[in-house]
Amino acid sequence: VRGAVSEMGKAEPVTVSPEAFLAMGREVLAKQPFSILMGAQLNALEPGRCELQLTIAEHLKQQNGFLHGGVVSYLADNALTYAGGTALSVPVVTSEYKINYVRPAVGDRLVARARAEYVGKSQAVCRCEVYAVTIHGEKLCAMAQGTIVPLPEAARSDTP
Amino acid sequence: VRGAVSEMGKAEPVTVSPEAFLAMGREVLAKQPFSILMGAQLNALEPGRCELQLTIAEHLKQQNGFLHGGVVSYLADNALTYAGGTALSVPVVTSEYKINYVRPAVGDRLVARARAEYVGKSQAVCRCEVYAVTIHGEKLCAMAQGTIVPLPEAARSDTP
Amino acid sequence: VRGAVSEMGKAEPVTVSPEAFLAMGREVLAKQPFSILMGAQLNALEPGRCELQLTIAEHLKQQNGFLHGGVVSYLADNALTYAGGTALSVPVVTSEYKINYVRPAVGDRLVARARAEYVGKSQAVCRCEVYAVTIHGEKLCAMAQGTIVPLPEAARSDTP
Amino acid sequence: VRGAVSEMGKAEPVTVSPEAFLAMGREVLAKQPFSILMGAQLNALEPGRCELQLTIAEHLKQQNGFLHGGVVSYLADNALTYAGGTALSVPVVTSEYKINYVRPAVGDRLVARARAEYVGKSQAVCRCEVYAVTIHGEKLCAMAQGTIVPLPEAARSDTP
Repeated sequence: VRGAVSEMGKAEPVTVSPEAFLAMGREVLAKQPFSILMGAQLNALEPGRCELQLTIAEHLKQQNGFLHGGVVSYLADNALTYAGGTALSVPVVTSEYKINYVRPAVGDRLVARARAEYVGKSQAVCRCEVYAVTIHGEKLCAMAQGTIVPLPEAARSDTP
Repeated sequence: VRGAVSEMGKAEPVTVSPEAFLAMGREVLAKQPFSILMGAQLNALEPGRCELQLTIAEHLKQQNGFLHGGVVSYLADNALTYAGGTALSVPVVTSEYKINYVRPAVGDRLVARARAEYVGKSQAVCRCEVYAVTIHGEKLCAMAQGTIVPLPEAARSDTP
Repeated sequence: VRGAVSEMGKAEPVTVSPEAFLAMGREVLAKQPFSILMGAQLNALEPGRCELQLTIAEHLKQQNGFLHGGVVSYLADNALTYAGGTALSVPVVTSEYKINYVRPAVGDRLVARARAEYVGKSQAVCRCEVYAVTIHGEKLCAMAQGTIVPLPEAARSDTP
Repeated sequence: VRGAVSEMGKAEPVTVSPEAFLAMGREVLAKQPFSILMGAQLNALEPGRCELQLTIAEHLKQQNGFLHGGVVSYLADNALTYAGGTALSVPVVTSEYKINYVRPAVGDRLVARARAEYVGKSQAVCRCEVYAVTIHGEKLCAMAQGTIVPLPEAARSDTP
């Protein structure tokens, strides 16, 4: 997700309270028209770690009533970017990721939890699990691993 | 994409004209609420090969004006599933894929072309390229590789 | 790794002691000429989890004195297969995996730890971390995620 | 493969004949002790494209007589690095890759063909196919996609 947490990245070197950090993360999400369309919410955010969720609704499904895989990928991708962006503390882009779908996503909500497992100067390698949540608990639906890299300097002026 | 082309798969052993084959593919897409939300269109479809596209619109973007990575992933994932499903000729699910984003998707349309590179009994391994298209031509935005597998027999009754 | 732990898989439904389980795993490794060439050792094995290691030696290096990436991949791949094979309890093959190299492997030993994160009927999705070990401790070198699947029935007679 | 083609990278901006280019690539390979152990040979090399091979020998196999997956991964990884390194024209490392095994590697030789599909300033995204070759022809065994990145400046002095 190109530049997804760029404003977070700019702000993070300043020491902020956990509440303010989460609030900044939510501001970024609120400026992404596609995340608004998907109904994504940021439940938790700290440097190198986040939890994103969305409500499983009819318009996000396939012909068989399951959540569309593209929705699962969207949430995993965005969660990886938040984890990597807050770990690297600079504007970032997702370079690449892989995802394994392990169960159809059936439930009330979809929750993605991501964390940076390795943080270097030029990249953060992050992992994410995606769960379908009902009143009865959580079921693992997908697992992802990806590379988050700093947005090239030249492109940063493009990000508002 | 779980069951994305299941009805295609059921129908394909019967010999059909290229036009009817594409029409069946479009029917499947038209039954996916999420694909309708994304505005996806099936431009071409033959066994083991497809082209999907969508219009790059404001509500699919990020805070920086680029198309959201999740939209690129959605189109790649769905294209891989069409390629694998029509190659395997049975109801299928996407087991896993990896995607490399190489350029921000800026343009009028996003086009994904996928093909099955290997087709066995238990899997099709497919590749996909995603392009941003303007009046001036196409630019490669992303490349994906993934595994499409037959939907387990037990789950097929669940797909309408 | 095709059939890497097939004999393990056949034996596992019988209840065995942890020591016997590890001993069986080592027997399988001892029958792999390539693992002998690499000097691989199985440090620990339980259903769905393993630790493999090898000694970092001159003949496994590149022109710059670092361990060759192919050696890191070998160890990760084999560890994923042990984790998945002992989780699924049938003869297995590695279907696919992805690996991120995060640091050059410099040290005395290379250690891979893998576990099955999801276990279904038709697949185990496993993750692995690879560390370079010196007297001073461990450093993460690589992270992998992959899919282990049952070896098709037809192919099992081929595995001694 | 960290620094695998670093000397190639340094030399490439000078215009060289195709023969000299291939000869330089072979020199790099000849300095990799692990590639010598594996018996790898560079059949062809041009900017952004290569063919590597090795002889399928007993000591590279598993307990079931098939070539070990780690050998297939080694050849794919090294081929991706040659393709990316000669495309980027600087010393490089493999950042990450994914590989799908599609058939057991049975035959006389294993051949990997790789090419850079996208070349930017900060990365080359490459693809590779691996074939088992007999007198009767070639069979696809594996497919890979990966990211090759410039070796950080700080690390270049380490590469002889």
